[in-house]
Amino acid sequence: MNGAECLLRTLLANQVDLCLMNPGTSEMQFVSALDRVPAMRGVLGLFEGVCSGAADGYARMTGRPAATLFHLGPGLGNALANLHNARKARSPVVNIVGEHSTQHLDHDAPLTADTAAFARPVSGWVRTLQRAACMGEAASAAVAAALAPPGQVASLIIPADFSWSEAGEPAAAAPRPTRALPSADRVRSIAAALRSGAPAGLLLSGSALQPRGLRAAARIRSATGARIFGDRYAARTTRGRGVPAVERIPYFPEPAQALLAGIERLILVEARPPVSFFGYPGLRSSIAPPGCAFDALAAEHEDGPAALELLAQELGAPASDPAAPLPPPPELPAGDTPLTAEAIGLAVAALLPDRAIVSDEMVSSNEQIYPHLAAAAPHDHLPVTGGSIGQGLPVALGAALACPERKVVALEADGSAMYTPQALWTMARERLDVVVVILANRRYRILDIEMQRTGAGAVGRRAEEMIDLTRPVPDWVRLAAGFGVEAVRAATAGEFVRVLAAAMREPGPRVIEAVLPAGVPRP
Amino acid sequence: MNGAECLLRTLLANQVDLCLMNPGTSEMQFVSALDRVPAMRGVLGLFEGVCSGAADGYARMTGRPAATLFHLGPGLGNALANLHNARKARSPVVNIVGEHSTQHLDHDAPLTADTAAFARPVSGWVRTLQRAACMGEAASAAVAAALAPPGQVASLIIPADFSWSEAGEPAAAAPRPTRALPSADRVRSIAAALRSGAPAGLLLSGSALQPRGLRAAARIRSATGARIFGDRYAARTTRGRGVPAVERIPYFPEPAQALLAGIERLILVEARPPVSFFGYPGLRSSIAPPGCAFDALAAEHEDGPAALELLAQELGAPASDPAAPLPPPPELPAGDTPLTAEAIGLAVAALLPDRAIVSDEMVSSNEQIYPHLAAAAPHDHLPVTGGSIGQGLPVALGAALACPERKVVALEADGSAMYTPQALWTMARERLDVVVVILANRRYRILDIEMQRTGAGAVGRRAEEMIDLTRPVPDWVRLAAGFGVEAVRAATAGEFVRVLAAAMREPGPRVIEAVLPAGVPRP
Repeated sequence: MNGAECLLRTLLANQVDLCLMNPGTSEMQFVSALDRVPAMRGVLGLFEGVCSGAADGYARMTGRPAATLFHLGPGLGNALANLHNARKARSPVVNIVGEHSTQHLDHDAPLTADTAAFARPVSGWVRTLQRAACMGEAASAAVAAALAPPGQVASLIIPADFSWSEAGEPAAAAPRPTRALPSADRVRSIAAALRSGAPAGLLLSGSALQPRGLRAAARIRSATGARIFGDRYAARTTRGRGVPAVERIPYFPEPAQALLAGIERLILVEARPPVSFFGYPGLRSSIAPPGCAFDALAAEHEDGPAALELLAQELGAPASDPAAPLPPPPELPAGDTPLTAEAIGLAVAALLPDRAIVSDEMVSSNEQIYPHLAAAAPHDHLPVTGGSIGQGLPVALGAALACPERKVVALEADGSAMYTPQALWTMARERLDVVVVILANRRYRILDIEMQRTGAGAVGRRAEEMIDLTRPVPDWVRLAAGFGVEAVRAATAGEFVRVLAAAMREPGPRVIEAVLPAGVPRP
Repeated sequence: MNGAECLLRTLLANQVDLCLMNPGTSEMQFVSALDRVPAMRGVLGLFEGVCSGAADGYARMTGRPAATLFHLGPGLGNALANLHNARKARSPVVNIVGEHSTQHLDHDAPLTADTAAFARPVSGWVRTLQRAACMGEAASAAVAAALAPPGQVASLIIPADFSWSEAGEPAAAAPRPTRALPSADRVRSIAAALRSGAPAGLLLSGSALQPRGLRAAARIRSATGARIFGDRYAARTTRGRGVPAVERIPYFPEPAQALLAGIERLILVEARPPVSFFGYPGLRSSIAPPGCAFDALAAEHEDGPAALELLAQELGAPASDPAAPLPPPPELPAGDTPLTAEAIGLAVAALLPDRAIVSDEMVSSNEQIYPHLAAAAPHDHLPVTGGSIGQGLPVALGAALACPERKVVALEADGSAMYTPQALWTMARERLDVVVVILANRRYRILDIEMQRTGAGAVGRRAEEMIDLTRPVPDWVRLAAGFGVEAVRAATAGEFVRVLAAAMREPGPRVIEAVLPAGVPRP
């Protein structure tokens, strides 16, 4: 069979059965092969960053890589911001990039570029195929590399002639990796430190923020009084009524440092020592108190939930966390008031269905909305990981492809949504059950604060022009309709509750433009 | 003064007075400094690729670089596709990228990445600032690098603390480069070869395709019978009634090779030996006949127009080209027929105002429209240069910023427009006089042909899903309105003529969605 078919069949043998693509000429053989390999699902994105962000969202929900398929170095360029985010999420992604045919590469054609150089900044593994006969082996190696704990972007660059040439049989599946456990000594030593009674915390990241890890951490908390902190930028956290709660580390360094004040020991579980998002004049970047001791119970590539269970056992923790008192059930906001982020938080918390998935790119509205969701039905929360905005809609798309039976809610800042709005079109095409709430303050509102914090001073008239998004006001109802998604606007709390309730009842996709005041948020 | 102000003032000293930006926290000092440096114009883009493509368009029309300002490595990532296109256009661009403050870089914050590695594939020059005191010198060096003939992307990466620290006075302007001329020997030798009478052609690229170069080439044609070919991917070609015509090299290798069949000698003027866009099974990538001799009259970095004048003089060519017979004036298409690309070509040719600028990203409709424009009023034609689609709208935006007194017409494929539709918002914000014609065949139509050509065979049912753009049909009237641009749809030739005539009379921006049949074009 030709190389393209060999690639698709090898991916399938490795349980990679979704390919998010924006193909061009050099990828035509892969597109053609879809008709001969029906188990491979092809999903088209109109912009590469939609595909790469969707692969991230898919990996976060399944633990398995999707494949992406891009057109040469510059097409890959458009995917890089969300591949960066996927890298920081530790999401496995099999990133296939078409290349000019080998005999064409010597000529300096318009699209000729150093494709591997485009791939390197976001990839843990990069390989350019050298012979068609290596196709199967290389595809399995790419899957193995993507899945190497804790997960990474593996980029395989394929010259077009290797797709149209004979490539032999598909390769066997790569062995699935297993994650290491901490040594008994390490567990004993950390248990002893926790028993000392000095103020301590667990900092969870990676897979430790899903139910198994959270339950074990809560048992440790019961046994020792250690607090449980959550990495703000971890790929996925299970939250909601009845789920053991973690204290999320705040965005700005001052409140983050205040939260950890007094902590003398941080037990890292798939986590690194916490650091602020940006550095500021005269402020420390590290979040933990000076002199705080760090113990790695599980490194990023190790099995955090199992490590937490071993630690709980070593500590003689109760077999289950005594049920924490449930928060009061969320109440809907009052109706006739102008819409606020607080009201959105209340409404989403009250109306979120069980086992929903929340893609969170709320940026400046986050602190007003996120806390309310702790009282919502249990759900998975998928936040910003790498900080490059334009992640929220594609991650929601990928999560919906991964979990068609679950409602996906994207809580999305209007500035951020502008980087990858084409995601709406693919949501419509694939009839995905996504509710997109556009938090329309019509401003890069976070920059009002950052302007002050970086010492740049007040926003002058001309600086204001770089932050204001009202001239013209983007109309998200029309934009969504232009991409084929039904949309409505809400400007009061009552309107928002009504349209959100309808959107939660009916299948998506749907967009709600939630008009918010543009005032400067509290830092 | 602080580093940010020093940077802006040094750029101004170098005649760089436009900054296309999508800033974040690490760039706040630059935004703030706009209020202290009013001669620097800041223009906001909602997506980085809009800014980088606009910088390309601006450079093509002015010969001067604009600055771009992006947020760390991943923000730069979003700009790379159009920086690739700018690189292939040989456009000077001063690409400023903010970086984490130096003390923050040691921590692995979410946005931390290898920013220089993001910049390298598209940049001829990359420098990461090492001290605030070097700011002025580095900014002048970046401008000098951008302007180094023939022009390139110069990327300067600036850690945030160097923007907020004292940086001293602005640097003096860098000396403007001059372009080299061919030696007298080279000119004599090429003149002798042309006098031999063997079939010969001039292949013009770069600045040789503007009026001075075209007039000199036409004199050489008169004196020797040599044909004049135009690099299809050159940044800018002046065309229209009374402008010496060039034969554009076709996209596909077979017609391109047919055009050059019999040519025994190609004189390269700021051009490289021509090559096909893609390689195909069993086809040559080079376009010139085997055995064709190449003579470089002017290398890419040399002064092609002056070199052509020297050659014309050496050949004793007439002082001016005898006026070529003017083509018949363009006629408007008949009204009640369904709209076709041919009709669009006729209408644009008839209605294009004098000295308009045409940004051409027509892709599969190109061959039906482009030839008609030869009969239009004189205009500058800005085509695809690097082949990464999503270039046309941003280039039109940049050309309009460069030439506010000239009408800009973007002829834009609907698939391509989907990569950077956010350009429409900046057109509205800056009230730019741009008419955007969206050629809406609702299909990646070029891929129908490429599917056959790459040997992938007929488009099957599942491959069709990766090429079809009708489920859902993007609604460009709503999308444009969502971005704040007035828009109309035309489905007959008569409607198109009426709305295009109105758009040509009135100030822009305006969008016309021109609905085309989706049939497979003739190769």
